[in-house]
Amino acid sequence: MNSLKIQGIVPPMITPLADMNTLDVAGLERLIEHILAGGVHGLFILGTTGEAQSISYDLRKELIERTCSQVAGRVPVLVGITDTSLTESVNLAEKAFHCGAAAVVSAPPYYYAPAQQELIDFYHGLAEVLPLPMFLYNMPSHVKVMIEPATVRAIAEHPNVIGLKDSSANLVYFHSLIQIMKDRPDFSLLMGPEELTGESVLFGGQGGVNGGANMFPQLYVDMYNAAVDKNITKLNELQEKIMFISNSIYKVGRYGSSYLKGVKCACSLMGICSDYMALPFQKFNEPERAKVRQVLEQLNIEVVNP
Amino acid sequence: MNSLKIQGIVPPMITPLADMNTLDVAGLERLIEHILAGGVHGLFILGTTGEAQSISYDLRKELIERTCSQVAGRVPVLVGITDTSLTESVNLAEKAFHCGAAAVVSAPPYYYAPAQQELIDFYHGLAEVLPLPMFLYNMPSHVKVMIEPATVRAIAEHPNVIGLKDSSANLVYFHSLIQIMKDRPDFSLLMGPEELTGESVLFGGQGGVNGGANMFPQLYVDMYNAAVDKNITKLNELQEKIMFISNSIYKVGRYGSSYLKGVKCACSLMGICSDYMALPFQKFNEPERAKVRQVLEQLNIEVVNP
Amino acid sequence: MNSLKIQGIVPPMITPLADMNTLDVAGLERLIEHILAGGVHGLFILGTTGEAQSISYDLRKELIERTCSQVAGRVPVLVGITDTSLTESVNLAEKAFHCGAAAVVSAPPYYYAPAQQELIDFYHGLAEVLPLPMFLYNMPSHVKVMIEPATVRAIAEHPNVIGLKDSSANLVYFHSLIQIMKDRPDFSLLMGPEELTGESVLFGGQGGVNGGANMFPQLYVDMYNAAVDKNITKLNELQEKIMFISNSIYKVGRYGSSYLKGVKCACSLMGICSDYMALPFQKFNEPERAKVRQVLEQLNIEVVNP
Amino acid sequence: MNSLKIQGIVPPMITPLADMNTLDVAGLERLIEHILAGGVHGLFILGTTGEAQSISYDLRKELIERTCSQVAGRVPVLVGITDTSLTESVNLAEKAFHCGAAAVVSAPPYYYAPAQQELIDFYHGLAEVLPLPMFLYNMPSHVKVMIEPATVRAIAEHPNVIGLKDSSANLVYFHSLIQIMKDRPDFSLLMGPEELTGESVLFGGQGGVNGGANMFPQLYVDMYNAAVDKNITKLNELQEKIMFISNSIYKVGRYGSSYLKGVKCACSLMGICSDYMALPFQKFNEPERAKVRQVLEQLNIEVVNP
Repeated sequence: MNSLKIQGIVPPMITPLADMNTLDVAGLERLIEHILAGGVHGLFILGTTGEAQSISYDLRKELIERTCSQVAGRVPVLVGITDTSLTESVNLAEKAFHCGAAAVVSAPPYYYAPAQQELIDFYHGLAEVLPLPMFLYNMPSHVKVMIEPATVRAIAEHPNVIGLKDSSANLVYFHSLIQIMKDRPDFSLLMGPEELTGESVLFGGQGGVNGGANMFPQLYVDMYNAAVDKNITKLNELQEKIMFISNSIYKVGRYGSSYLKGVKCACSLMGICSDYMALPFQKFNEPERAKVRQVLEQLNIEVVNP
Repeated sequence: MNSLKIQGIVPPMITPLADMNTLDVAGLERLIEHILAGGVHGLFILGTTGEAQSISYDLRKELIERTCSQVAGRVPVLVGITDTSLTESVNLAEKAFHCGAAAVVSAPPYYYAPAQQELIDFYHGLAEVLPLPMFLYNMPSHVKVMIEPATVRAIAEHPNVIGLKDSSANLVYFHSLIQIMKDRPDFSLLMGPEELTGESVLFGGQGGVNGGANMFPQLYVDMYNAAVDKNITKLNELQEKIMFISNSIYKVGRYGSSYLKGVKCACSLMGICSDYMALPFQKFNEPERAKVRQVLEQLNIEVVNP
Repeated sequence: MNSLKIQGIVPPMITPLADMNTLDVAGLERLIEHILAGGVHGLFILGTTGEAQSISYDLRKELIERTCSQVAGRVPVLVGITDTSLTESVNLAEKAFHCGAAAVVSAPPYYYAPAQQELIDFYHGLAEVLPLPMFLYNMPSHVKVMIEPATVRAIAEHPNVIGLKDSSANLVYFHSLIQIMKDRPDFSLLMGPEELTGESVLFGGQGGVNGGANMFPQLYVDMYNAAVDKNITKLNELQEKIMFISNSIYKVGRYGSSYLKGVKCACSLMGICSDYMALPFQKFNEPERAKVRQVLEQLNIEVVNP
Repeated sequence: MNSLKIQGIVPPMITPLADMNTLDVAGLERLIEHILAGGVHGLFILGTTGEAQSISYDLRKELIERTCSQVAGRVPVLVGITDTSLTESVNLAEKAFHCGAAAVVSAPPYYYAPAQQELIDFYHGLAEVLPLPMFLYNMPSHVKVMIEPATVRAIAEHPNVIGLKDSSANLVYFHSLIQIMKDRPDFSLLMGPEELTGESVLFGGQGGVNGGANMFPQLYVDMYNAAVDKNITKLNELQEKIMFISNSIYKVGRYGSSYLKGVKCACSLMGICSDYMALPFQKFNEPERAKVRQVLEQLNIEVVNP
């Protein structure tokens, strides 16, 4: 049994960049304050939305330091340490520990596609040497394998493993996790896709790691609260707004990276931070930017930086 | 037009490990000599077969240093710099350059699945700052995208891009590459899978990056020469042996990692180097090892270290 | 606007077989009565669960006739006409019409993987000549393509298209359908997977096409009613039972066909009908049958035919 | 051991259609004569290229009758009987037998994705009742499963199974088939993709089922003969032309159906037969047709019907 229990809305923060190897420091500060002002329950940096894999280790470490320092304990900070090399994951975790992060988050090593037994070996090896408790991160579209429910159960035998973030968008899987972990109330099950967070909480999930909360943190906190309160009418109202964002801002571009570019573009339009992206991605050009602006206007969001 | 033209058999070297963070230095020396004694035309380190993604950057750098130093110019050394972060790829390339490597090899950033235009942006950005010429590395099973023929053509406009290693096992694609690059005789097309190298050379490919050459370098050199000589009878004889290895040693284990474990296990049985593997993989246990031993005996290979 | 509105639980009926080309007629009668006794709102024959694709056209036509005749208007009967040939789909629909079925159901032609525009062409061509209203059937795991939300919208312009059954298990998709069709209250959105039906109804779906309702029709009707009543506590109680069935009976076998074999085996154990399966499938052997029996006993279901 | 040995070029014939349910009878006659005039070694009707799955059973039977009657024993006729229902496959085979076809061809049942053991059960069940010898048809892109080499070996124990057509484009697989069947010289291994037929014959394959032979039968016969003669220089010359066709005519359209539409369009331009396609496909519009015309002109093919 672990004492840290993460629940609620834990936004996966975008990483404000000035250029490939430089943080947008002022943007980062504004972004953190913007998100915390929405009443979120935690902050997750260096995930998929944070472009962690695209930026250098030095920059990742600087981000950990600056974020932890500015959050200053107001909410728990979770740090993505996903790497193909166990050793490099541990290096990042050490940094997170020294900066005061609450936990780390690790998707499976994502170059080879490991078998389920290999996942158990890897995670037990990792958990054993980590200085912080760990969340698993199920992300099959990017790492090519699911962490199957029985595998989660086996990995969770290690006391350092305290939860799982599921970004598979597969709710049959999520329901199976709820069942297989129901005798482990200390184990947090968080939903990645914001489109599915409401129902996941209704059925026993602990919260959401929702990218839209970079832009509109309170919307997702309200949705979480409506779900906790079993207020289905309210939940449907908010769900409609959440789906509108999902089907507009995230669909402006043509590629798989459209979601990420949409969130960064909106944050730039709102005057929060730079929309610079690390390669292989590039920020939206003017035509896409104009479309995102239009959506924000439909949502009555002030566009500070057109 | 570049002056470096890589052709022939360029084995993707396994990385001999004593443990997670330590090279098997004596094994590495024996392995390099074993491979070079087979008459190969180059050496490729830190590829998929080299478990590059599983080991730390410090260890990768040590491997670059030791390998270049021992090869000492006898054949060109190619260094894998595949990374999800352009900056970290460049860091590895700088090391390779200072150690005297001939070229670097880069598969697409493998966490997100980039679109074709994003691949062009990424590789042009990378080629621009690299201190060494670069091979593209097409590896869709691991990185989730093909580098389409038209994309290869676009990337190859940059003078630093001198060839491509194709591990897709898709020969329709390879034939298309041959056609689309036929006015670029300086551009090398190398075949990854050893099962397909013979025919790729018959139809205009420049050679093979064949994992089996860790164990039996001369076999693949002979196959390459038979293909260059258009000696189909000889080629079929060698192909039968190559297929036997592929269908035995590489199929002993149950998982996708079976090929890698098989090669390392055989090298260990032959007394060349350790079969330790970095997580998420683990070396074969005794029952699988016994099966590999049996195959080696069928091949009349002396088992020094049963 | 169409006048037929399908909502509630519409079980996808298994097809009781005596052998490859013969219905288990007595079993079919018992099965229909067993299902209707559970209070279901419709009956869907010749879907994936009905092994439609595995049995001959003559047998499919006999099944349509017998089922319509026995149901005798107590609930609407939906008939699967999914085929790769538009002409054969129409042939089946003619039969359904003459027997008094209420509607037909059609998944995309499943040999080639059609593009979205090709789906629109196909379905408009089909809807134009059908004698009955049609449900679309989204089944990407079997037909290799999703019917994208914008495609559904375009197809639904035809007045003969009255709903969609979604078996993708992708709730982000389902939420998008709800949004894109919200000005079409006459259009029914039904959920295939029983594990996801409760939440789909909470968020605006009209019901479920749940395979488990062959065995336990009332369970799914109760779940549907709890969702309609927004009774989350009750829904979670029933969900736990539904997940138990999903993770036990459907997981007894090793292959993808395990769900289908599990349902047929349970119906056989309960004394309802034969568990004979058409090739390429075969019914469970004794060891798997014993496991299904055990699950039924855990559920306090009487095993009539051990 | 069977006495029928199919080898050489066996074109998968397109099906000339006047409309959805009517053959283009005059076109069919011209097409058959055009193909046979190229010196091919057999004719395969009702395959993927023949749109078999898109047309009605009545039309398929008419096509069998007319084709066998016109070929009149000049070359062996192979008939596709691929179906999801064993019974319907047998019905088609009976027709083929009565019309004088030489053999039938069957891809796995393609709605469910059967497991390897289920494939063995299905094919043994089918072979047992077929009136004609059977070719297996490996077509994973359309049927979702590979017929694994060990499965082919097991199925081929039945004396009615005389060969396999491989359309996987996976030559590692094809090389494995050659090895696993090398003690069965009576078993024919035919290559689907024309881009890979040359090399497959060099390494022990028996010929090609090449769609391009609808347009240019002699080109593929020449390629086959060059491969049989081990004339690599000639083979490379022809390969260049084959790749040009593959990268032009087959890539004119945007969808997966582009190959099929390209072949039909070219045959129409050459004055051979109608380019009407059964839904879900539609023939090329004028802009695409103009592109195909341009390619034919580059190939110095007379365009009779612009």
